[in-house]
Amino acid sequence: MAHKPFSEKEIHCRHDKLREKLDDKEAFVAFSFTGSYYLSGAPIVHWGRPTITVIPKSAPAFMITSAMETPRVMSLGHISEIKKYTDAEGPSLATGVRLLCDALKSRGLKKIAFDGAMTPFGTIELLHSMTPDLESRDGTDDLNNLRKVHSKEEVAHIRKAVATSDVGVSTILESARIGQPESEIAAIASQEMAVFAAREFPEVEMSFRCYSQQGERTLEPHSGTSGEPLTAGNLLQVVIEAAAWSYMSAVERTIALGELPDAEDKYYTTLTEAHEASVAALQPNAPASAPHEAASAIFMRDGYGNSPFGTGLLRGMVSEWEGRIPTVDLRSYNSELLLPGMTVTIEPFTIVEGVGATRHCDMVLVTESGYERLSKAPTGRLRIG
Amino acid sequence: MAHKPFSEKEIHCRHDKLREKLDDKEAFVAFSFTGSYYLSGAPIVHWGRPTITVIPKSAPAFMITSAMETPRVMSLGHISEIKKYTDAEGPSLATGVRLLCDALKSRGLKKIAFDGAMTPFGTIELLHSMTPDLESRDGTDDLNNLRKVHSKEEVAHIRKAVATSDVGVSTILESARIGQPESEIAAIASQEMAVFAAREFPEVEMSFRCYSQQGERTLEPHSGTSGEPLTAGNLLQVVIEAAAWSYMSAVERTIALGELPDAEDKYYTTLTEAHEASVAALQPNAPASAPHEAASAIFMRDGYGNSPFGTGLLRGMVSEWEGRIPTVDLRSYNSELLLPGMTVTIEPFTIVEGVGATRHCDMVLVTESGYERLSKAPTGRLRIG
Repeated sequence: MAHKPFSEKEIHCRHDKLREKLDDKEAFVAFSFTGSYYLSGAPIVHWGRPTITVIPKSAPAFMITSAMETPRVMSLGHISEIKKYTDAEGPSLATGVRLLCDALKSRGLKKIAFDGAMTPFGTIELLHSMTPDLESRDGTDDLNNLRKVHSKEEVAHIRKAVATSDVGVSTILESARIGQPESEIAAIASQEMAVFAAREFPEVEMSFRCYSQQGERTLEPHSGTSGEPLTAGNLLQVVIEAAAWSYMSAVERTIALGELPDAEDKYYTTLTEAHEASVAALQPNAPASAPHEAASAIFMRDGYGNSPFGTGLLRGMVSEWEGRIPTVDLRSYNSELLLPGMTVTIEPFTIVEGVGATRHCDMVLVTESGYERLSKAPTGRLRIG
Repeated sequence: MAHKPFSEKEIHCRHDKLREKLDDKEAFVAFSFTGSYYLSGAPIVHWGRPTITVIPKSAPAFMITSAMETPRVMSLGHISEIKKYTDAEGPSLATGVRLLCDALKSRGLKKIAFDGAMTPFGTIELLHSMTPDLESRDGTDDLNNLRKVHSKEEVAHIRKAVATSDVGVSTILESARIGQPESEIAAIASQEMAVFAAREFPEVEMSFRCYSQQGERTLEPHSGTSGEPLTAGNLLQVVIEAAAWSYMSAVERTIALGELPDAEDKYYTTLTEAHEASVAALQPNAPASAPHEAASAIFMRDGYGNSPFGTGLLRGMVSEWEGRIPTVDLRSYNSELLLPGMTVTIEPFTIVEGVGATRHCDMVLVTESGYERLSKAPTGRLRIG
């Protein structure tokens, strides 16, 4: 496990680009998992103990972390100057921020930009109470403008996650049967993914999550798996997430359970067509609204009206808790341009009374000439039983 | 799945207690998953779309959420007034905060307290830019003082999570063998946990996570599972997490892989003794430092020095991302008193050069007369192979 998620060259390149956005004597301070990982190469989820990465405009980068995380910061990251605190010194947030204030002061740094969209209000208040003359600004946009276009090394991690998600989907399509509890199916898919990942990517830290809903419970897209048995006549929604070094993929499928009633059958036909049209609309320099508009036209044509949901989002170092970049949401109002290197989900869907709200979701990379569908799991109309 | 995580009575009781801390005409606004779930009963992870729960001092509670989460808020929560936004209206954060501003204004609410330790700085800035005359204060302590003592309904969820974690530990002890990849073991344990939970608690949304390290890699306690085979002579650290309605348990074990070298063997003996002493020190009205001091005495006696780590933390609605309450960290400096109803982990450990940093971790409830160890998994010296 001497492997690091990123090369030193990649991390230094990120620093160089971020420094272009900083004023003289300014430092970027990343308090969040996302910001600190992006700028250090070390993925440290805080667990109540802050890890802070600091990139001064014209001085070496440094980090503040807990004794618990120091070995991980050193083995995975590329910043060698680390200021360490222990649990014995006092509450971790106050201890970590005090170390930050001291380090800024000793370097004559009086201005900072920080990742304000992902840093708690209380942390910034504490910082200012400890260093009242510190000038600060929310530098989220500077950070996210770098993050939104994925590097080759980032895309390589995403590919591993997607390949693993694909295994989960295939496992369910091949082995699930009517009457089996949803939770059992999710567990079997997770296990196959783990075995696959251990064999193919033994040097990568990975995580897996499968969950599902069926019938009207698909109206709650973020609800967890229950022990409900697969029931013929329902549309089943499966969500297969995998993360490689915290780069998360989501491959999702709507699956017919046995023979479908007419309403479910009709929506399923429309959905698969909308999905394909939406993928095909992904092009470099197209507006971020394009995939949404392509799907909407088909939902509208078939009488399903306007969807209250967007059609996808930038993926990669994004979890349900942190890291989403709203400027790359694939939504009707969004005229931002898609750029080569962006990896997004394409997942158009809508709500149909009495049927549910199900979707196919693929991971798709914007390329110089068009797009590459990273997920290879079977698509179109799928059926179990 | 008509089951809700909490009764209406429980949620109203939380509102009543929180309102005692509010000024006239003030409202508590919970932006975070933790705060909003605690006050509404609906566990909505944001995924980039804010769900906001508002408890005015003397007006009915209301919520703001996305169209995507509205069915889940309605089916699981206990607040009936819901202001809904769609993805078509614009970026979700600005849309949600605008709805909040309008709702506060229409009710004549000009003062808020909020969960500042868990709400992004950018969200509060946006709120103030939209409503410049709004008075606000960080009300994190008011919220956390309620949260830190678990109700009977909360303890019931924690018990389900712990019972499920216990199954994971037992599965590993019974089925793992030297040479098997760590990731495979984690997957098998997860599957057994899923089967158990589906059978015992089919109405509960649960999640499971197992990870492990062995040998010197235990120096990175939060690193994920790798594909490394179990190797004789190592100490294996397994972490078995389960969450029932987002109430998370952690049961962790240090396991000898075959015959141990002397250094590993000696630490293992000390560790198991420190662990038992630490559990026994958990008493109502004892300081939060007591379990740590009990373990420290044994580490010191055996020549391991002072640990740089605390000995545990308040568990329950706490994840690696959010919700930790530092005033109940079991650390040397902490003189806060333990109270009946608090559920904590007891997990003393330290770093030993060349050996690693492994621990046993139990979930323990403080009771009126002492403590109840909720986790029943085998403890003491354990061995595979």
